[in-house]
This record gives sequence, structure tokens and C-alpha cells, in this order.
Amino acid sequence: MHIVVLGAAGMVGCKLSERLLRDGRLGQRDITRLTLHDVVAPAVPDKPGFKVDTATGDFTVPGAAETLIADRPDVIFHLAAIVSGEAELDFEKGYRINLDGTRFLFEAVRKAGLQQPYRPRVVFTSSIAVFGAPFPDKIGDEYLLAPLTSYGTQKAICELLLSDYSRRGFFDGIGIRLPTICVRPGKPNKAASGFFSNILREPLSGQEAVLPVAEDVRHWFASPRAAIGFLLHAATIDLATVGPRRNLSMPGLSATVGEELAALKRAGGEKAVKLVRRESDATILRIVEGWPRDFDAKRATALGFKADADFDAILRAHIEDELGGKAGA
Amino acid sequence: MHIVVLGAAGMVGCKLSERLLRDGRLGQRDITRLTLHDVVAPAVPDKPGFKVDTATGDFTVPGAAETLIADRPDVIFHLAAIVSGEAELDFEKGYRINLDGTRFLFEAVRKAGLQQPYRPRVVFTSSIAVFGAPFPDKIGDEYLLAPLTSYGTQKAICELLLSDYSRRGFFDGIGIRLPTICVRPGKPNKAASGFFSNILREPLSGQEAVLPVAEDVRHWFASPRAAIGFLLHAATIDLATVGPRRNLSMPGLSATVGEELAALKRAGGEKAVKLVRRESDATILRIVEGWPRDFDAKRATALGFKADADFDAILRAHIEDELGGKAGA
Repeated sequence: MHIVVLGAAGMVGCKLSERLLRDGRLGQRDITRLTLHDVVAPAVPDKPGFKVDTATGDFTVPGAAETLIADRPDVIFHLAAIVSGEAELDFEKGYRINLDGTRFLFEAVRKAGLQQPYRPRVVFTSSIAVFGAPFPDKIGDEYLLAPLTSYGTQKAICELLLSDYSRRGFFDGIGIRLPTICVRPGKPNKAASGFFSNILREPLSGQEAVLPVAEDVRHWFASPRAAIGFLLHAATIDLATVGPRRNLSMPGLSATVGEELAALKRAGGEKAVKLVRRESDATILRIVEGWPRDFDAKRATALGFKADADFDAILRAHIEDELGGKAGA
Repeated sequence: MHIVVLGAAGMVGCKLSERLLRDGRLGQRDITRLTLHDVVAPAVPDKPGFKVDTATGDFTVPGAAETLIADRPDVIFHLAAIVSGEAELDFEKGYRINLDGTRFLFEAVRKAGLQQPYRPRVVFTSSIAVFGAPFPDKIGDEYLLAPLTSYGTQKAICELLLSDYSRRGFFDGIGIRLPTICVRPGKPNKAASGFFSNILREPLSGQEAVLPVAEDVRHWFASPRAAIGFLLHAATIDLATVGPRRNLSMPGLSATVGEELAALKRAGGEKAVKLVRRESDATILRIVEGWPRDFDAKRATALGFKADADFDAILRAHIEDELGGKAGA
């Protein structure tokens, strides 16, 4: 089978590509070809077991989406997006990439199907940013999408398009709303949510990290490993069991900063916890207060999507996958 | 003040224009100019008390939206859309008119504001088709938008855009989800919902009408008079009281076909009811079963939008507004 990954150079895209290369199969079928696309060049894997192409460019320019799907891939992972902060700063770019880009892709698939039957699986990563405060403590599967950012608006619109194109039979789409990824690998970044990962990742590598909010702040998490599990399950699930509502809040772990720090202590000892410097930041606190804290992800759970058990499991996955099995504070 | 009505030749557009011409003012302000636009020529009113222009054309062609708002109207009523059935039959046309057309209008307003400050009120008519079965008996203000038609998808997307453009300050938008209009004036049409009006309007004019479903079928209604009331209230309401969730399910009347017929009997007597011929239609029944039956329109009610009291009131409004005050069976 031929798989295309859009947004392959991003954190989730890289991890997904690595996993596909390692497994060599998706569900019951062998992978015969993998196309990795991003606006910056995706890493070219070393000695892949099957044909791998990389493609670099803006997928919103005319013809780009058509070229990407010209060989009629069986599965398209659409992870490409500009992030929340940038979509808020640059209104036009956000709508061009996150909305128009997605629509161009969907239209390219639909039009390919007008030539001869074509109905690939399209797996789209949405976001919990489709929800906007005020919301209940636990957000259920029938809760209103009322985003308070342009990014969340763009994701919500793509969800609606995905359901309609799927209902029409133009492709078999499924959208998954990812929790905040934690522990996010790499360097600390300026994202308002960055500290949730920084306060674990940095101390486990012997580095200091800043905690800008109080320990009772609650949020919704999934490890990178769980996120890749969601994507693979979404790519192989029987969509008849999903029904017409094709966008699902993924199960996650609802935890407080205090619970994160307790897990850090168990994994890295008191010396790791001491590397967390408290420096409150009213701006970050205000942003975080507008985010969902917990979900009742009944549908996704019933459909077999699996969350991390607890923060100890999240830290174990991080230590195994990123630190070669050793917390090195 | 200058008002533009898009979709001015439609049923709601005509009634709104008539009302604006009659009132000569909107809220506290005198109307100085009214621009009526539609794809077919809107009726030119006789001796208006202020300047009235009519414009005819496809508002989705390049430049059309810019021309329409070139004189910076204070209020834009955007009622233009192709209907549910057509949007389902013609996928591309539905998205072009109902989604792209709306976005062109919103973009034209945003870009005009980049030249010099401009922030008109935009009143958008959405639809209960943004909801899709299964839903609860009463749909609340926080219920998921999960449309099961392309029309409903297009309306839901425009709602999201309207909220985001409003949040950004590009215009002051408000979207109102109209109940099924009843009694719809004019001739019987092929819309699946047509019978709800036909079984009242036709017998009150001495004509036979077909009832394709059982008397216990429940649906959600507003009179044309109530619908115009919603539009005028939306155009003048203090949006600070509405908050960031700019799309509201309008209050309506939840009633069964049996309740319609009982009101018909009170208004037109037994001879009117005898003109309703029962002829069950499985296709129409199946479509109607997928429609919302009732809403808990708390927010709109608290914000002062007013529903019809009962079907007797709906029939009285019809008899006064359409039949010169006399039920003429």
C-alpha cells in the first residue's frame, strides 16, 4: 500500500514516519511506498525497506495537492498546519494553509474520483482548540465546537468538510482531536503550552525549566507514543463502526501540574524536581485557563483508541523513546 | 443608515425589505438607503421614502462582493443561499454559493476595513440543518453541530467564520438559525418540508393539500412575521450581551401535525380540515425523521428573540398578512 504523510517534518509527522518505516506495514497490509511531504524537507530515511519519496513545498499552491495524490495513495495522513500562535498572528496565512490547503487536498481527491473511482482513507489531525470556554469540566462527544482562535476555527471547519466529503463517498475520512502532546521532545519553544513538557523534559536531562502556573492547573495530555497509536488506529479502523460523525476527541490523560511533578519525582528523584523554577506568568495563566481540562471521550474509547494510563507511563515512554532508557538528571 | 439585503428576492428577503420600507427605520436610526440584491431581480418598491437601489447578479463572481459593500453599508443582511435540496444535488454549486460566496462577502468587508476602519453589522441566516440526527428531543445551546447535508455543512462553516471574523473585529456578526417557516406563503413547492405549510395555506384558500406523514410528527416552526422579528432584533441587539458565540438557535414553536390541524379547524372550520388528504410518503417520512423536533433556545429567548405563542397565532398572522384578514375556504 502507498501512504502519503503531509506535514512529515513536524514532530508528530516524524514520529509517524519512523513508526511506519519500522513496522513496514499498516494494519494487515504491507507498505510498498511512502511519500513524505512538508514545507521544509523531511528527513530521508536510511535504508528503508520500501520505496520512500520526499517532497518539499507549499501544498496550497495550484496543482500541488493534485501532484501529491496523482499516484492514488491508499492512505493520506494530513498533519500539515501552521500552529495556533502563527494562525492568530497572520490571519491570511492561517486561513490559506489550514483551511484552503485542506480543502485543496480534499478537492483533489474528489476530482480524482470523478476520473475513475478513488476512495482513499484520509486521517486528519484536528485539535482540542475547536472547543472554546466556557465549557464543562469534562467535555463530552456532543459538545458544541465554539473555538476562540482562528486556528481552532480552521480546524473545526476542516472537520465539517471531512464529514461531508466522507458522507458523500469522496473519501473515507476520520478526524482525530489530539490532546496536548507531552512530553514533547526537542528544545523548549515559545508555545504557551510548552511548560507542560519543559518541566519534565528539561529536568530529566539535568536542565532547569520554568513553571509559570500553579500546581493545581489541570490539562489534557497524550504522549507522542499514544498519539502515533491514535493515528495508526484511525488509519485502519472499520469506519462503519464510526458512523457519520467522523471527528473524535481522542482519549487522554487529565492531570494537574502537581501530578506531573509527582511523576517527575518518582522518575528522576528530588534533584530533578529541584530544577523546576517557579516564576508565575499572568499571560500564560490567562491563556491556559481558556483551555479544556478534561474530556469524556466515550466514543473514541469505545472505538478502541487508547490513552496513556498515567503520568508515570508518559514519563516511561519519554525515557525509553528519547533518552535511550535512562533518566539522566 | 444604509442597509444591504443579499437574497432580497427570496421569501424572507422580500418580507424583510417590505418591513424596512414600511418602518423607514431600524432600531433608533432612520434608513437613508436600501440596497436590494439577488441573483434574480428583486422587486422595485413603489414610492419608497428613501433611496432604494436594486442589484442583480451572482455575488460569487470576482469583485461582486466588493461592489456591494463599496459604499460601506451600516448593516448587511446576508440571506442569500441555494436551498438544501439543490446544494445536495449540485455539490460544487452549493459550496460555491453557500460557502465561498459568504466568505467573499466576509473578506470584502475585512479588506475594506484594512483601507479605513469599517465594522458593519452582519446578520446571517443560518439553519437548523446544522444539526444532524441522532439528537436529543430538545436541542440545547451547547449541542454539537453535526450536519447530515452539504447545505447544513455550508451553513455550519459560515457560522464558524462569522464568529471568528467578529472576534477579530472585522465586523459585528450575528447568525440566527431559523426554524422552519410556516405558514410559508406562495405556491406548494417540492421541498420535503413543504407539507407543513401546504396543509394550512391551501385549505384556508379552499384548495386541497396532501399530508404525507402521521399526525404525531413533531417539528419546529416560526411564522414569517416572527422570522422578520428575529432579523430586526439581530440587527439592533447590543452584541456585547451576545458574547463570542455569535450563532443562536432562534426560539420557535414545537408542534405536531395534529396541533396544526387542530388550529386549522379553529381558524377555518371542519370544511378546511376536510381538504387535507392523507397520502403517506415513506421518503418524506424518512427525511422528516432526521430533522430536529424541538429546541431549548434559552440564550436567544434571554436575549429577547420572540417566538410565536402557538399555532393559532401563526395562523392569525398568516390570515392577516397574506389573506387580507379573511380565511376564505
